[in-house]
Amino acid sequence: MRADGLAGGHGGADRLGELIPVALRGMAAGVAERGGPVPAGGPAAVAAALVAEGGDLGAADHRAGPEVPPPDADEQDNTDPLSETGRAALPRRGIGAEAALEQLSRLLAAGSADPADPACAAHLHCPPLAVSVAADVVAGALNPSMDSWDQAPVASELEREFTAGIARLCYPDAGNPDAVVTTGGTESNLLGLLLARENGIVQPVCGANAHHSVARAAWLLGLPAPIVVPCEGDRLLPEALDEILTPGCVVVATAGTTNTGTLDPLPEIARICRRHNARLHVDAAYGGMALCSDTLKTKLAGLDHADSVALDLHKFGWQPVAAGLFAAREAADLGALTVRAEYLNADDDTEAGLPDLLGRSIRTSRRPDAFRMAVTVHALGTDGLGALVERCCATAAEVARHVEEHPGLRLWGPPELSTVVLRPVVADESGGDELVARVRRALLEAGTAVIGRAALPTAPGGGNQLWLKLTLLHPHTTAADYLPLLDRIVATAGAELVAGRESPVAS
Amino acid sequence: MRADGLAGGHGGADRLGELIPVALRGMAAGVAERGGPVPAGGPAAVAAALVAEGGDLGAADHRAGPEVPPPDADEQDNTDPLSETGRAALPRRGIGAEAALEQLSRLLAAGSADPADPACAAHLHCPPLAVSVAADVVAGALNPSMDSWDQAPVASELEREFTAGIARLCYPDAGNPDAVVTTGGTESNLLGLLLARENGIVQPVCGANAHHSVARAAWLLGLPAPIVVPCEGDRLLPEALDEILTPGCVVVATAGTTNTGTLDPLPEIARICRRHNARLHVDAAYGGMALCSDTLKTKLAGLDHADSVALDLHKFGWQPVAAGLFAAREAADLGALTVRAEYLNADDDTEAGLPDLLGRSIRTSRRPDAFRMAVTVHALGTDGLGALVERCCATAAEVARHVEEHPGLRLWGPPELSTVVLRPVVADESGGDELVARVRRALLEAGTAVIGRAALPTAPGGGNQLWLKLTLLHPHTTAADYLPLLDRIVATAGAELVAGRESPVAS
Repeated sequence: MRADGLAGGHGGADRLGELIPVALRGMAAGVAERGGPVPAGGPAAVAAALVAEGGDLGAADHRAGPEVPPPDADEQDNTDPLSETGRAALPRRGIGAEAALEQLSRLLAAGSADPADPACAAHLHCPPLAVSVAADVVAGALNPSMDSWDQAPVASELEREFTAGIARLCYPDAGNPDAVVTTGGTESNLLGLLLARENGIVQPVCGANAHHSVARAAWLLGLPAPIVVPCEGDRLLPEALDEILTPGCVVVATAGTTNTGTLDPLPEIARICRRHNARLHVDAAYGGMALCSDTLKTKLAGLDHADSVALDLHKFGWQPVAAGLFAAREAADLGALTVRAEYLNADDDTEAGLPDLLGRSIRTSRRPDAFRMAVTVHALGTDGLGALVERCCATAAEVARHVEEHPGLRLWGPPELSTVVLRPVVADESGGDELVARVRRALLEAGTAVIGRAALPTAPGGGNQLWLKLTLLHPHTTAADYLPLLDRIVATAGAELVAGRESPVAS
Repeated sequence: MRADGLAGGHGGADRLGELIPVALRGMAAGVAERGGPVPAGGPAAVAAALVAEGGDLGAADHRAGPEVPPPDADEQDNTDPLSETGRAALPRRGIGAEAALEQLSRLLAAGSADPADPACAAHLHCPPLAVSVAADVVAGALNPSMDSWDQAPVASELEREFTAGIARLCYPDAGNPDAVVTTGGTESNLLGLLLARENGIVQPVCGANAHHSVARAAWLLGLPAPIVVPCEGDRLLPEALDEILTPGCVVVATAGTTNTGTLDPLPEIARICRRHNARLHVDAAYGGMALCSDTLKTKLAGLDHADSVALDLHKFGWQPVAAGLFAAREAADLGALTVRAEYLNADDDTEAGLPDLLGRSIRTSRRPDAFRMAVTVHALGTDGLGALVERCCATAAEVARHVEEHPGLRLWGPPELSTVVLRPVVADESGGDELVARVRRALLEAGTAVIGRAALPTAPGGGNQLWLKLTLLHPHTTAADYLPLLDRIVATAGAELVAGRESPVAS
């Protein structure tokens, strides 16, 4: 097949039908090659494997022709970030679609941390559903660009419908809520502060438990750094908020922290914000989709009092990154995003009935990420998604019980969502935080498991202490799948403690 | 198959091998159903078709159960943006993966403006290559998230290698250039201003021809609105720039305007910036990939004097949206993006050798868009991509000659890249801008063609005049493919002129 065949048009489905199996064959080979959740050997081994593959990939490349000296010779500029690999230049000659797809797909699969493996449990990094990835093929092939109706006729309608549904999920009783698609919680939190800024409210306030993107958004937007409110148990202290709040503030509360999955007391925070006439944005990137579960949604009581909400379907929602959403209680608030560009949304076109999409994002060209989200929701229903959220939370609760009963582990506290925070007891006895950090890195380096870390103020005197974290987003596992990992953590902690005593400078 | 099957892990390739053909079957059916480049009937027809399909899609939904009155009855809230369709809620019950995929894929294809059809030629909206879409399947299935190494081991290495190649393409002689992946020109232009701001340079300056995202970025970043420099022939006037420039300025020049594809005189602008000690960012979102062509890259002479460059591979590069890149001549400038988040890039992890990815974007979670870009470049080589750019530009030049010779059309000027700007002569005689706008909308509404519009200062006295625009990004067409469209534009202009005379209020 020609390397430059198109994905769209009348022959597009046939061309994809030829090429995608090649990519999947490469992927399956790479998954088998990897074996575990993550490639062993750490960054050095992964980089070396890529360099080793470089020879094959560059076979048709005239950089590597017989007359040219090897690029690691003296002509190579040593200040180049990739000079050691000699591959800073893009290949001039191609190797064809099939070869590139098969080789690079194998390479990507062999070298990935695959969240579909239960032992890959560090981050809010979910294993995507096949239905979503399959839907994305059609979105990619047709390539609707969400910045004007004439680039995305039905895709923009589908997005409108889907985001209206999300707005209604967040705000079941509001008069006129709305939602837009974002690249994730970071962009959604930025929108939360931006809409506040455009309403004249420029002082962000957030808990010590808030995501780093809140401070970063303030920096990007030219706002003052957030005032940080103390927490207890990774939960914002409402009385502390009450003391510092003024009408010029926008409060960012968290429904599911990155460290522990804890939810801030939303009803109380909402009441305090109302009393002080402050604005409220809730970062529910992690916890928001619990709204799909009748049993869990009580945890989100008070969410509908927020002025805006961040939601990520690439966490609970099992979408590939990115699948961010931003809901506003008052659709009019999104008017702050209005912008005119004559070539995309001229006044006369809008008056003639062409929908204006430009004001639905701070981006211009945009993927139709709503399409695969909508296909997923139509496939499973919100009940189906809610059941998967419940499953993850129930598994986490059970794993937490096992941690509590394990003689070698200490549990931070019972999970509110699906995050289990734990610490090897030997760290308390003699290894300290450094040992905790080394356990995580040793498991990663061995290719055994990908687990997370969280600094939490549990040290005597209130200082931070390092914990290990399992973020359980795999929708099909049971607690039994994680029990070997608990033992492995304890064994690794013991081994690292011994290694540390033998060679105290090793990392 | 279970609706909640995963795309990754050991069974992932098999599950995708079952589901993707279902999606492609739906897509092929929808493409056949549509027939032309875009669905006929305009926004009303597209929205109505979606509502009509809603019945099928909602078949398993208990909202539509026999005991429940139809949602358009009195319980429906009329302030809801979608109340007329009664579909503001997400479906609670799913219809399964296969049914959702087949039905929604057909719907998306039938209702899309497909850039793989030559008559879909309005925007910088390219038909994606099948090889890129196929590569994206693997990226979506494995879901590397580019915010930490332990979520994207080899994906981050591949991105590093690819972005180093892009940096070298933009800056062949610089000591230490670097590049990062963005969501497109809008984010790249924002980064251009952000890096300036972090260097203490807060006054943006751009041509009247600059993309609207420049002013929007200034607004987002809390910077003053850009000082706008006059243009001639859609090209920034260097002497005008020279007059207003001061050391506290960051100049945004354009290498390929959205309206006409014109390139600003980069060497002269770079000299002026140097003289005034001003910073220079070049928005080469459209024209940048001409660097891959030995014959065209002379147009970009001077680009390597810019401090930073925006580049979009979802234009020339034939990637699905988004495939944005931002190159900086000095890697150190990207240090402005540095941010620490204990759970993603703790100091001790970085010291122990885990690469810090967080400072490579203003986003946190990120798709590995570099993967499909890298696969594409390995498949075709930069020579292969350069040949496709040349082809589009050559076709545009030939179409422009046909416009020039056409008695019913007027050519704005010879294309510099692949944009042909034209105007029906009857608009000059009696229809005016309103007629031009109506020709575009009539072709869109009929489902015949998607062509663009551009307001350019060609009216007597220097005021704006509306033109029609063909942006040719289809890599396999010849001028002959566009000749019927030229005749159609003239015929439609004539018909609209008559219709306008008969009923002057019609749009």
